[in-house]
Amino acid sequence: MTKQKTAKQSEVVMTEMVLPNDTNTLNNLMGGKLMHWMDIVAAIAAQKHSNRIVVTASADSISFKHPIALGNVVTLKAQVTRSFNSSMEVFIEVWAEDIPANKKTQTHRAFFTFVAVDQNGRPIEVPELVPETEQEKELYEGALRRRQLRLILGKRMDPKDAVELRAIFEPDFGKEGNRE
Amino acid sequence: MTKQKTAKQSEVVMTEMVLPNDTNTLNNLMGGKLMHWMDIVAAIAAQKHSNRIVVTASADSISFKHPIALGNVVTLKAQVTRSFNSSMEVFIEVWAEDIPANKKTQTHRAFFTFVAVDQNGRPIEVPELVPETEQEKELYEGALRRRQLRLILGKRMDPKDAVELRAIFEPDFGKEGNRE
Amino acid sequence: MTKQKTAKQSEVVMTEMVLPNDTNTLNNLMGGKLMHWMDIVAAIAAQKHSNRIVVTASADSISFKHPIALGNVVTLKAQVTRSFNSSMEVFIEVWAEDIPANKKTQTHRAFFTFVAVDQNGRPIEVPELVPETEQEKELYEGALRRRQLRLILGKRMDPKDAVELRAIFEPDFGKEGNRE
Amino acid sequence: MTKQKTAKQSEVVMTEMVLPNDTNTLNNLMGGKLMHWMDIVAAIAAQKHSNRIVVTASADSISFKHPIALGNVVTLKAQVTRSFNSSMEVFIEVWAEDIPANKKTQTHRAFFTFVAVDQNGRPIEVPELVPETEQEKELYEGALRRRQLRLILGKRMDPKDAVELRAIFEPDFGKEGNRE
Amino acid sequence: MTKQKTAKQSEVVMTEMVLPNDTNTLNNLMGGKLMHWMDIVAAIAAQKHSNRIVVTASADSISFKHPIALGNVVTLKAQVTRSFNSSMEVFIEVWAEDIPANKKTQTHRAFFTFVAVDQNGRPIEVPELVPETEQEKELYEGALRRRQLRLILGKRMDPKDAVELRAIFEPDFGKEGNRE
Amino acid sequence: MTKQKTAKQSEVVMTEMVLPNDTNTLNNLMGGKLMHWMDIVAAIAAQKHSNRIVVTASADSISFKHPIALGNVVTLKAQVTRSFNSSMEVFIEVWAEDIPANKKTQTHRAFFTFVAVDQNGRPIEVPELVPETEQEKELYEGALRRRQLRLILGKRMDPKDAVELRAIFEPDFGKEGNRE
Repeated sequence: MTKQKTAKQSEVVMTEMVLPNDTNTLNNLMGGKLMHWMDIVAAIAAQKHSNRIVVTASADSISFKHPIALGNVVTLKAQVTRSFNSSMEVFIEVWAEDIPANKKTQTHRAFFTFVAVDQNGRPIEVPELVPETEQEKELYEGALRRRQLRLILGKRMDPKDAVELRAIFEPDFGKEGNRE
Repeated sequence: MTKQKTAKQSEVVMTEMVLPNDTNTLNNLMGGKLMHWMDIVAAIAAQKHSNRIVVTASADSISFKHPIALGNVVTLKAQVTRSFNSSMEVFIEVWAEDIPANKKTQTHRAFFTFVAVDQNGRPIEVPELVPETEQEKELYEGALRRRQLRLILGKRMDPKDAVELRAIFEPDFGKEGNRE
Repeated sequence: MTKQKTAKQSEVVMTEMVLPNDTNTLNNLMGGKLMHWMDIVAAIAAQKHSNRIVVTASADSISFKHPIALGNVVTLKAQVTRSFNSSMEVFIEVWAEDIPANKKTQTHRAFFTFVAVDQNGRPIEVPELVPETEQEKELYEGALRRRQLRLILGKRMDPKDAVELRAIFEPDFGKEGNRE
Repeated sequence: MTKQKTAKQSEVVMTEMVLPNDTNTLNNLMGGKLMHWMDIVAAIAAQKHSNRIVVTASADSISFKHPIALGNVVTLKAQVTRSFNSSMEVFIEVWAEDIPANKKTQTHRAFFTFVAVDQNGRPIEVPELVPETEQEKELYEGALRRRQLRLILGKRMDPKDAVELRAIFEPDFGKEGNRE
Repeated sequence: MTKQKTAKQSEVVMTEMVLPNDTNTLNNLMGGKLMHWMDIVAAIAAQKHSNRIVVTASADSISFKHPIALGNVVTLKAQVTRSFNSSMEVFIEVWAEDIPANKKTQTHRAFFTFVAVDQNGRPIEVPELVPETEQEKELYEGALRRRQLRLILGKRMDPKDAVELRAIFEPDFGKEGNRE
Repeated sequence: MTKQKTAKQSEVVMTEMVLPNDTNTLNNLMGGKLMHWMDIVAAIAAQKHSNRIVVTASADSISFKHPIALGNVVTLKAQVTRSFNSSMEVFIEVWAEDIPANKKTQTHRAFFTFVAVDQNGRPIEVPELVPETEQEKELYEGALRRRQLRLILGKRMDPKDAVELRAIFEPDFGKEGNRE
């Protein structure tokens, strides 16, 4: 499939209010509920890129630093960063807004991957993604490195084959005279 | 705090049925719903270890390889693997069971971390975890390495200081004559 | 309060997937569920304009011509059109998208009004709205006429005082020599 | 179809308790949740009149004057007022009751319309409605006027053809010597 | 407290539609969901009789003979049968209706008991119930016998003290010359 | 069918947190919600014993003595006690845990019965249950007596034929010389 689509074409914005049943004893949004919303907004972005049914393949590690309070408005924005045959990486940004206090904070950034499938659940090729803005290009480049980390963590790649990733751990790796 | 608790004391088992609203177009459980359940079962395990209010600190990367079908019974088992001051790592295992077909499969293994807090949300020390079985000891050992990966991914640790983790990427690292 | 805000500053976009429990026997979205979503997205827009707690004051008549199917993605966009002391009119547009079929249709347009209140539920003044685009200016003008219709339907205005509205029913009304 | 049914035969009573997740920051029932309940009770009334699948065709404008508090018991009563070929107008009355305070208030009156459809979603004729009580006869008469307003608001009728409705705006309209 | 209220004054009618998430693999309403609805409708009836907060004290045994299908309309009617100091017995009748098939069946009859409590959860006396119709009088008489069965099953009464109940098991019990 | 299964093979453990929407005005778990959870955990136990679709046949009387507070963790454990052709009795135990207070209480014990059915809803034979522990044997013995009570309450057995049950009401019943 030679079709190409821009990152912008897959953009999805979702808005949710934090209700009592979504919160823990401290009246803050439970992490699991936020991951549930992330999965939905990211799945829609992957659907828009592929015009296919999509299934979640992985969620990268997520760190929860900023509590989100009961009554806050949560905005989630998702966009495909890059596609690999039948799989797509989606970048999700989350903002929490205390509207009466006029305070909006970016609280989370996360990566999920999805696979496009046909009616029988078999993987099917998706369009290439073409990054346009500076941020989109950076996300596109990083996608390869994140993919290696996922394959290693999923024990489907030998760490020493993760060329892009090793550069992080071994600063001299890849420099002249040092390549194995 | 010198108190100690075993891993077993924090064990929690949760059972859920996959209902229509939990599923995607292919009638399989949505990944986000499963992460929501993982967060709840793991939070209860962390609560049992600490006897405190706990908040989700991070979810490690999760891979979704096995679709779980509508009507399946999902069993989630969570247990604290190790504690670090006020934080706890929790190991979650998930099984899906098609009971009429008498088929039960382990579908997921995941790690979440939680922080114990007081009523004002300030971190508070938790008991030490004492592993007993072989598996518990292995999980206890690995917790350090996973913690380094989390700190690097969260940009709070320089990759070259991740002693335990580097061993994975540089097979010779740490051997005699090779230490920097 | 002399503060002014643009219509754009109140814009909110919400995205929902139609799940089994949202549908009727024909597997189409129930009208009541859609009105529930409209109320939430419009309330957030009114909150953003006023930075206050808001309560629904009225929902204008809504016509349901286009069925929205199970699995469709529903996008709701809301924006304040005009403010009157403590009340705000919000314009809501709804699109339904069958992503695998690559088909997106505008299915609904609706108007809700909200009142900004303080912690005791007493009405409180809100900023003036400044329309910028052509469509925003048209919506701003029409807001007066819709307000008269609401007041008449709520039996709080005598139809013969509804100057803007009468022009619709009596084509010659307001022309020279015809004014009462 | 020559079948006739009374208004009483379609009567439905629904009772709901206002739970935490149904409320806004002031602990009052959200307007959208109430509209959701109205749609369900009215749909059942239309089903009882027609013994058919029904789909929401329109909701007339609704005004929210009386806040309904958390813990209140909400009673909704719906009854078909008149049928037009395949469509039915349903009248909904809502009461809120603070039982410990022994206080019950009628809070809302609303009109929804529904269309009876066959399994393929095609409109299908419904029985005539026969009003019996004084109130039922009044609602039956008013149904024509409300239908004209809906058609005009939906831009499917020219205001000057709305004979019954014009009488409201032009007090002399329809009197001798004044008819166009 | 010498206040008296009729059974009719506590009557509550509730109507629910069976939605996908309420059903089992055979597309029939799950028993647990029905018991949940029974508890709510009966609690409201007990509230109306006592004008107090009420808590569920017991649910008598319930038999599920008639499956209720997805899409059916379920009507629940509850009425207090008798009060004992701070407790009330509530009688619940359930009908399932397949409206397109024009078929309505009484599917369940059940008894729940509730205790009226003050804000601190302490039992508080409720009005006496005055039965009026034949059925209400019969339910009022039977309430004593059902209460004995509950006390025995809850191990708070010795079976040989259950005068009314023993008559069922020992046909001659209570006749002259046979009393212990 | 000569197949046999132990009670242990059907054991199911379910864990739930009490959320705001599950509670009444006193912030305690509503009885109906607990019965809903009991039905689910017991149905899964019956499914595990029979490897069949199961439908709820009856719920024995349940007494609610211990309020369970918002934020508590509720553990439900279910196990089949005995099978009778196509029906199974399930024993359910419930514990509520206030984890920060380190307090766990057994709050409920209940019996539900289920019938195993084929795809058309027709009853189908299930394996025999073999009790192993002392408690399992006691539950197995009592199952016969509880079954008689259910049949009498359901008016499908004449009280004087309930041999096991009569012994409770007539202490001398069954002793030599006293048998009818």
